[in-house]
Amino acid sequence: MIARPLPPLVATMGDPAGVGPELLVRAWENRHAANLPPFFVVGSASVLRDAARQLDSDAPIVAVDNADEAVEHFATALPVLDLASGSYAPGCPTREGAIIARDTLAHACDLVLAGTASGLVTGPIAKAAMQEIGFAGPGQTEFVAQACGVAPADAVMMLAGPSLRVLPLTVHVALEQVPQMLDRQLIERRITIAAAALSRDFGIDRPRIAVAGLNPHAGEQGQLGQQEVTTIAPAIATLRAAGIDATGPFAADTMFHAAGRARYDLAACMYHDQALIPLKALHFDEGVNVTLGLPIVRTSPDHGTAFSIAGLRKASAGPTLAALKMAGEIARRRTA
Amino acid sequence: MIARPLPPLVATMGDPAGVGPELLVRAWENRHAANLPPFFVVGSASVLRDAARQLDSDAPIVAVDNADEAVEHFATALPVLDLASGSYAPGCPTREGAIIARDTLAHACDLVLAGTASGLVTGPIAKAAMQEIGFAGPGQTEFVAQACGVAPADAVMMLAGPSLRVLPLTVHVALEQVPQMLDRQLIERRITIAAAALSRDFGIDRPRIAVAGLNPHAGEQGQLGQQEVTTIAPAIATLRAAGIDATGPFAADTMFHAAGRARYDLAACMYHDQALIPLKALHFDEGVNVTLGLPIVRTSPDHGTAFSIAGLRKASAGPTLAALKMAGEIARRRTA
Repeated sequence: MIARPLPPLVATMGDPAGVGPELLVRAWENRHAANLPPFFVVGSASVLRDAARQLDSDAPIVAVDNADEAVEHFATALPVLDLASGSYAPGCPTREGAIIARDTLAHACDLVLAGTASGLVTGPIAKAAMQEIGFAGPGQTEFVAQACGVAPADAVMMLAGPSLRVLPLTVHVALEQVPQMLDRQLIERRITIAAAALSRDFGIDRPRIAVAGLNPHAGEQGQLGQQEVTTIAPAIATLRAAGIDATGPFAADTMFHAAGRARYDLAACMYHDQALIPLKALHFDEGVNVTLGLPIVRTSPDHGTAFSIAGLRKASAGPTLAALKMAGEIARRRTA
Repeated sequence: MIARPLPPLVATMGDPAGVGPELLVRAWENRHAANLPPFFVVGSASVLRDAARQLDSDAPIVAVDNADEAVEHFATALPVLDLASGSYAPGCPTREGAIIARDTLAHACDLVLAGTASGLVTGPIAKAAMQEIGFAGPGQTEFVAQACGVAPADAVMMLAGPSLRVLPLTVHVALEQVPQMLDRQLIERRITIAAAALSRDFGIDRPRIAVAGLNPHAGEQGQLGQQEVTTIAPAIATLRAAGIDATGPFAADTMFHAAGRARYDLAACMYHDQALIPLKALHFDEGVNVTLGLPIVRTSPDHGTAFSIAGLRKASAGPTLAALKMAGEIARRRTA
């Protein structure tokens, strides 16, 4: 029996004034070296052509009408479903650009939900610009969740690099709000979703999940804060009773050296920087943001629009390559 | 003119039931390979002999009466000022051991203050055990500060590894207390002390100090927390007006990759884990705790008593070697 080939991945440019367009051109140029699965862009052919010119790249950009055409052309050109005749002004975000980012994201979601594309890789957007045009949800993760009919709280962000996966249990909130936001239900629900996703999407049979404490030294038995005693340890006990291999709470500062990382498949962290500091310290150029708990495959390079260096040939395509590869791997595993 | 040789360093064992004794034996064994300056121990010869036996080490332990004798013997034996006939029961801390830790620390401080020793390297203690015997101050840093006549708040802890120095502006407090503890005065005072120490003790002419934000993305202009706007940025402005090269506040998660670290000599961090997570992720086996702002030189390996592995030949001497080397380097620079 011959396995039916997977549909291609679909990628969005994100904000056309950010580094998204140039990174997709770079990714296509590196498709062989990085062993990327076929992908096409939902975006603007004119923006991508201008980005290629700015890079002194001779990558041909080809407008296609559908995913089958994209696969046909992928070997020789970067295929784009050309939805917007946007202009290219790197570093200068506009309202028009935010609208392109929103509309192409919505279209790309629809293609994955319809099975036309096997996974979604989203480019970086500018949250403030998106809010001005009435974008629903603080970020793309919430938008994609809603498009999939999943409650945004159940779409769980994981960041992954070659030697470390982290799960920030709270994300874009002021640090002083973190202690009151953490409760057993949140910890249990997100780790349960993550454990299932590590099995289904990453092929890890019984994932080992190390849970960080909130306080220094994981609170030293309540000497330096109570949340480990009142909230985190009971949540871990509940997870273990449900058959999930969660352990901790551990002192966060001794979790992330090589020997520490070897002990788990996922570090569940209490707040943004506790997760992102070690991930980016170790894997700045390889970080992938993957959304767990969705019916569709969705990844993203773990960086922002980087307006200040857009168009200057400084942005690294490493995270975009890693995001495309990981989306392809998850898509293959789900259909295996 | 012949430079007068520096007095030796003095080291304490810390808690005799911890890994301190065995690590001093290991450090002496590695004195040539690590190019260590001469040092002697203020502690217990019997404990050190037992620790050497447990390690299957043939390092001779020699009791000495003073620093000059210590220097004479250092090439052929580990010199110890034998103040306590303690017993060696690794992993089993006792009240007697805590008393030895306290009394030898006090004696070692006196030797450095008197100029008999050129610097102090302290071994790890168990804070809970020390509190039970009425030890003044939560940790050794505060004790040493008081012995030097320095207000504990002005003895500033810096952690240093080969490619990163971090300054946790708050240390052993519950995370929820951090936002209210941070004020301009604290930030300005500690960074001022650190800047002076980097010049005097580390030979950095005009140290570049990168200041982290408290909140994710350094608060995104007040969107994710106010402390950057109300407290951290004004403190940086004051420091700059005083001629200190402080910059920020920066998003903490993008400060610690190699290119980020190359931009500064010291990362000033708002709380324990923000500083210790990247330091230990990158330099777990080389971290030195150095106290800035004291009239004496004081360093320490950046780990605890590790009772669970004491006596099992598992503890790494890397941090102890690094602490001895750094103390010697600072002492040389201060007398140059």
